[in-house]
Amino acid sequence: MENLFSDRVKKLKASEIREILKLTQQPEIISFAGGLPAPEMFPVEAYKTMAVKVMDDMGREALQYSTTEGYDPLREKIAKRMICSGIEATKDDILITNGSQQGLDFTGKIFINPGDYVLCESPSYLGAINAFRAYECEFQEIETDSDGMVMEDLEQMIQKQPRAKFIYVIPDFQNPSGRTWSKERRQQLVEIADQYNLVIIEDNPYGELRYEGNPIPSVKSFDTEGRVVYLGTFSKTFSPGLRIGWVLASPVLLNKYITVKQGADLQASSMSQRVLNAFLENYDFDAHIKSIIEVYHKRRDLMISEMIKHFPDKAVFEMPKGGLFAWVMLPAHVDAKELMKIAVQNKVAFVPGGSFFPNGGKENSMRLNFSNMPEEKIVEGIERLGKILRDYIG
Amino acid sequence: MENLFSDRVKKLKASEIREILKLTQQPEIISFAGGLPAPEMFPVEAYKTMAVKVMDDMGREALQYSTTEGYDPLREKIAKRMICSGIEATKDDILITNGSQQGLDFTGKIFINPGDYVLCESPSYLGAINAFRAYECEFQEIETDSDGMVMEDLEQMIQKQPRAKFIYVIPDFQNPSGRTWSKERRQQLVEIADQYNLVIIEDNPYGELRYEGNPIPSVKSFDTEGRVVYLGTFSKTFSPGLRIGWVLASPVLLNKYITVKQGADLQASSMSQRVLNAFLENYDFDAHIKSIIEVYHKRRDLMISEMIKHFPDKAVFEMPKGGLFAWVMLPAHVDAKELMKIAVQNKVAFVPGGSFFPNGGKENSMRLNFSNMPEEKIVEGIERLGKILRDYIG
Repeated sequence: MENLFSDRVKKLKASEIREILKLTQQPEIISFAGGLPAPEMFPVEAYKTMAVKVMDDMGREALQYSTTEGYDPLREKIAKRMICSGIEATKDDILITNGSQQGLDFTGKIFINPGDYVLCESPSYLGAINAFRAYECEFQEIETDSDGMVMEDLEQMIQKQPRAKFIYVIPDFQNPSGRTWSKERRQQLVEIADQYNLVIIEDNPYGELRYEGNPIPSVKSFDTEGRVVYLGTFSKTFSPGLRIGWVLASPVLLNKYITVKQGADLQASSMSQRVLNAFLENYDFDAHIKSIIEVYHKRRDLMISEMIKHFPDKAVFEMPKGGLFAWVMLPAHVDAKELMKIAVQNKVAFVPGGSFFPNGGKENSMRLNFSNMPEEKIVEGIERLGKILRDYIG
Repeated sequence: MENLFSDRVKKLKASEIREILKLTQQPEIISFAGGLPAPEMFPVEAYKTMAVKVMDDMGREALQYSTTEGYDPLREKIAKRMICSGIEATKDDILITNGSQQGLDFTGKIFINPGDYVLCESPSYLGAINAFRAYECEFQEIETDSDGMVMEDLEQMIQKQPRAKFIYVIPDFQNPSGRTWSKERRQQLVEIADQYNLVIIEDNPYGELRYEGNPIPSVKSFDTEGRVVYLGTFSKTFSPGLRIGWVLASPVLLNKYITVKQGADLQASSMSQRVLNAFLENYDFDAHIKSIIEVYHKRRDLMISEMIKHFPDKAVFEMPKGGLFAWVMLPAHVDAKELMKIAVQNKVAFVPGGSFFPNGGKENSMRLNFSNMPEEKIVEGIERLGKILRDYIG
């Protein structure tokens, strides 16, 4: 029956991270591999109280079909919160999706013809790469430094690729590099997109988890022509298991996302949307985020200081200002996939960085998550990893 | 920016039903338009109790990421229940999706190259037509009679269409026609698919809502080569607002659905899956379905007997043996879209049948839903509609 498959899925393969995650689900492994929030920070009691409230107040509506766009009171609250990112929005600018991953899939569906080019940071988020690849695009990786994409490289690549459709970026605490774009680069990015008539996809799952410095306005906040699509999610600030994210875009673009959502699965869960809305109405969401930040801030500091203590000098890393990830560059000859095999034997895990480069060829890096493991495991795990690294690369 | 859209979405338009549903959401309208379950049958108290139980027993897991395939205890229960449809399955044959609509979208993604043909009943489900169309297929409608697809027509069309990929069918209480396939036709369908190496997509959202006669084994139950993909859902038997459905398929096919699910939105809601699983564990699901059947059975009988009383003889309809819909054929010259405008002025609504024919050209039919409106509204609404029909077609 394989001959009946479409060309797009013939090329698809399961995500490497996913296979690795399966491997690392054994409880004795200290895993820095996944991008999981700390489960002890989930508002379990509040969720329970709000689920009861929703069932009592509007149980039938919460179990019935509702509109594709999403639950209006939730859309309104999201729109209002966007002002923190420098964006003035109303509920009509918002579509509720199943996490921001669904926004990525829809982006591929809406913009990519087979052979079109996606411009992205090098490295970039594996889940986005896989979502776009399903629509048979090619990737042009753009060089980045500690201020974000290098604009000269971006412009050069746009001129080389007349089939470029959009530029995909994660400007805050990027996955996997942990890097954050400067304000200037954000502005320049919009100017370049205006000049060459490209769409920008701004993916911002981590922006609210900042551990130092001041927030930088979103790329979308510089958008005067309605060409930036902003993807948000509650996965890192509330719960990933609910699958609630959103797309914010100008009407011409958002209408396409709504039509695609309708064909894809009709709507997000009526119940999950209402419980989340009730939480935002009855609890202090900013205080909740602050409590997450306190915990992750400590874990980040601890992981980086342990890395400094135990990793050999040839392993190079920066201090991420927020988010969930630390990124380590290793000497050019090192294959982190090989390293991973040794690590798993030693009951510690990470994600080999190669998968984050869509065009491949760069295997000498590792992504380490610091949000999920408690402090004593961070200490223990980084020590183990340090020993492996010292043995392997000296 | 429209020039940046992919070819596939340039052709997409919002579903007509959806626009109509918006129109009919005014509370004074008696609407037979949507495919909505009766909200008074939703197990609100049980849902609340189970949500509390899940939060108490495993709150953190229910709010965390989990596997793409779905929650194992739920997959196991679904697999066991499949025996009612004559299918022996294990959890490994099941992928949890956001309603069966997501299974339809994935089907398009997995099988359709632009220009490929989908073979479907004439008429067929609008949501499936839209989901497939997003992957730029063509449709070949197959003639149906009261036993299902006419096999001679099917075989002839397959021979005419070397680019046919799969046959899409709703064998039980079809949407929109209400018709049910005979056992013989189901067997023959599998034989023909075997002979011509095609996949069958069996969509069965209504099969458990039977008001008379005995269940007929599913098409999948006759499948010896693993070429039937079965789509199920809890939308009509538990709650559509949760968005929980499933795909059952042989490993080669199911693996593609799992990979596609991962890129599309990672996983279904951990929370919704666990609450549904707890409901299936702690309540009598068959008794719950029986209570729905009792109510819908009465509503169907009432709607059909009122139609016999009030509709002119030129409006032709059958008695559906289950499901949610009655289907009315009108004289060839009648455009049900025009009729709909008059109906809405008279505060009653239905879905004009034209949208259910993917290749268009057949406007003289209407779909009436009997599950959503209480009995007194069915009486009132059918009387109004009868008057309009008598005035319009005599």
